[in-house]
Amino acid sequence: MRTVLLTGFEPFDKEPVNPSWEAVRALDGQRVGDAIIVARQLPCVFGAAITGIEALLDELKPDVVIAVGQAGGRTELSIERIAINVDDARIADNAGAQPIDVTIAAAGPAAYFATLPIKAITRDLRAAGVPAMVSQTAGTFVCNHVFYGLMHALAQRGNAQVRGGFIHIPYLPEQAARHPGAPSLALDTLIAGLRVAVATTLATTDDVREQGGQLH
Amino acid sequence: MRTVLLTGFEPFDKEPVNPSWEAVRALDGQRVGDAIIVARQLPCVFGAAITGIEALLDELKPDVVIAVGQAGGRTELSIERIAINVDDARIADNAGAQPIDVTIAAAGPAAYFATLPIKAITRDLRAAGVPAMVSQTAGTFVCNHVFYGLMHALAQRGNAQVRGGFIHIPYLPEQAARHPGAPSLALDTLIAGLRVAVATTLATTDDVREQGGQLH
Amino acid sequence: MRTVLLTGFEPFDKEPVNPSWEAVRALDGQRVGDAIIVARQLPCVFGAAITGIEALLDELKPDVVIAVGQAGGRTELSIERIAINVDDARIADNAGAQPIDVTIAAAGPAAYFATLPIKAITRDLRAAGVPAMVSQTAGTFVCNHVFYGLMHALAQRGNAQVRGGFIHIPYLPEQAARHPGAPSLALDTLIAGLRVAVATTLATTDDVREQGGQLH
Amino acid sequence: MRTVLLTGFEPFDKEPVNPSWEAVRALDGQRVGDAIIVARQLPCVFGAAITGIEALLDELKPDVVIAVGQAGGRTELSIERIAINVDDARIADNAGAQPIDVTIAAAGPAAYFATLPIKAITRDLRAAGVPAMVSQTAGTFVCNHVFYGLMHALAQRGNAQVRGGFIHIPYLPEQAARHPGAPSLALDTLIAGLRVAVATTLATTDDVREQGGQLH
Repeated sequence: MRTVLLTGFEPFDKEPVNPSWEAVRALDGQRVGDAIIVARQLPCVFGAAITGIEALLDELKPDVVIAVGQAGGRTELSIERIAINVDDARIADNAGAQPIDVTIAAAGPAAYFATLPIKAITRDLRAAGVPAMVSQTAGTFVCNHVFYGLMHALAQRGNAQVRGGFIHIPYLPEQAARHPGAPSLALDTLIAGLRVAVATTLATTDDVREQGGQLH
Repeated sequence: MRTVLLTGFEPFDKEPVNPSWEAVRALDGQRVGDAIIVARQLPCVFGAAITGIEALLDELKPDVVIAVGQAGGRTELSIERIAINVDDARIADNAGAQPIDVTIAAAGPAAYFATLPIKAITRDLRAAGVPAMVSQTAGTFVCNHVFYGLMHALAQRGNAQVRGGFIHIPYLPEQAARHPGAPSLALDTLIAGLRVAVATTLATTDDVREQGGQLH
Repeated sequence: MRTVLLTGFEPFDKEPVNPSWEAVRALDGQRVGDAIIVARQLPCVFGAAITGIEALLDELKPDVVIAVGQAGGRTELSIERIAINVDDARIADNAGAQPIDVTIAAAGPAAYFATLPIKAITRDLRAAGVPAMVSQTAGTFVCNHVFYGLMHALAQRGNAQVRGGFIHIPYLPEQAARHPGAPSLALDTLIAGLRVAVATTLATTDDVREQGGQLH
Repeated sequence: MRTVLLTGFEPFDKEPVNPSWEAVRALDGQRVGDAIIVARQLPCVFGAAITGIEALLDELKPDVVIAVGQAGGRTELSIERIAINVDDARIADNAGAQPIDVTIAAAGPAAYFATLPIKAITRDLRAAGVPAMVSQTAGTFVCNHVFYGLMHALAQRGNAQVRGGFIHIPYLPEQAARHPGAPSLALDTLIAGLRVAVATTLATTDDVREQGGQLH
């Protein structure tokens, strides 16, 4: 049986909840075809978040890893294309650290591309009625940090067959209700969407070629 | 028993559904305290939409009327403050008409304020976890047209005790999935929100004074 | 010789300058055809701003009045369509007042339409390379307050032949430099644009019928 | 004497002009301290644009290279942080090609960071009253393509002392006048801003540590 690891984050930025944890924990233990989903929470802390996901790789030996994080202000599921080797924190993390222009892995490359089928996931989400878009940047906070750390760990271990990536999700409606003007998606939509992302990843060997870029 | 009339529109602008009709029809026949909700559909057609709502006033003699319409691109329930006496259509309506700078009621005033407790509704929606905002413009298409026609009809009939207004709602997620970047709210959230709007209206005689304006 | 009164505001909301005053004062004393422009500053204060513009009507007996104000966050010259009879202040004015849901003129109508040729102005601005759009709301702060007060004063005096309206303008670049993400227009562009608006108003008796509405 | 190469693009996407070429050509031949600026135009064509900038490196042996491109819809000068090794074209380039998920350099790394002092440039632009922001993505069209090709060429030639990067700039006002709602900056502002970017680069050995990241 294949194992799919989904990670979500603890709340940060003064929010009482983090939709990424609320969504992935609802999928914990669920079967998708021949695979089982395991959901775990990561701290919103530079360093500790990567240590945490590395320990989960050792413990669970997953075949697929999708890290999920909150993107307050985005409207859709953002399927991230690339993780970059820098921390540049606009706010402090949950341990009070605010690194600026710090390299994540000293000997690591400038970036890693996700190895999920990001175009097929986007296509299947839209077909399922879930708003989705390929994103060209995961930012420079703890989400990008974990995404980079995950891909670096997989590369270092020679686990090329383990596929990994990151999906940003909007606020929940109850969060947006306290941020006038902010978009949101219902928890049910997020859960259904992440389940589609898992199923598509498991079913797709080679990604489709569909346009998902930006002019700038 | 008091009667609350909720109207929704048929689909327009090439959409297969209109969230306003999907949401209000789910509330048709429901009780809210001592009141009953009646939901009806209006055509997305200049002229016919007002004729339709006037006929519903005659038929149902409602105590409260909330017209609801789709606002593709908005993120929240928009509780409209004011209806203005002009049609200026960016696209054709469902009958092919596209009036530009045409007065809705020749002898009517420039505008009518909603007589719903728009601030209390916004406050109660947010408290219920439903994203909401007071809006200063309902546009110049069929939504504003019906809103103006409703308020003008109530004023003409001397029905000052009948309260009326308009609420714009975002796309459903399945619509937003075909409009990359567009925000949306789940149907359940919309239904729950409109039910709150009805309950607050029935329970509120004098609106609260809470800030809901815009600098520009 | 005809007289065109342009008003701008003093700075507010902690800004060191107000682009509306910077732009209109550059046009003070300029000739446009057979007309002369007179530029004056208004306080960003509820009540006093209307008293100020009423005094200017008495003093200058202008043929055209265009009040101009800052709209931080907008991208274009916004040619306002309608002024509404309510103050609802998101922040305090320069005298510390923050009225909420207060009627501007107790016996006044709900709204007044601008009597400028708003469509012709928008068309001519675009043709001159100046970004412009018709706007359906001037907000509920001091800008809308002055716009309503101006139109009410003209109506009260029976000065139907005096045309009046309001144009919102974006930040200057040096203001936007302190508001990351905010759009702006250069002072030269604003000045050129307001001059076009004056010339078009003087040259236009009946406005053109060109689409300038919004769906919502 | 040091040489600074500024490149701009020919028009694309049906625009009559490209602000990047209009701005850089105004700086051609100008002195900044002990350096001289040379401005050249690149085609908006995948492949040919990189061939073009490589030829300019050979011909001019510049000490600093700043490629500049149009970002219609952005509000500010965007100082790009990173170039990624993929083409994913939302529209066809000027030769009709529309590559999707094609690697730019087969043996190249996933990304290159700009070697310009992006934080010092952003700080100095703002101090000069020019709206500016660090950007985490240059998109996946010809701008990112040239940016990646430039950094790859510099790395391949062992020209570590030559600094390179990319700056995206908004529409000109006359372009925005044909795209209702689009932000813009005046040509004078763009020229002044690029001159600041050149001067800061020449004067700065080690970049400053100032926050310029994004949460997502």
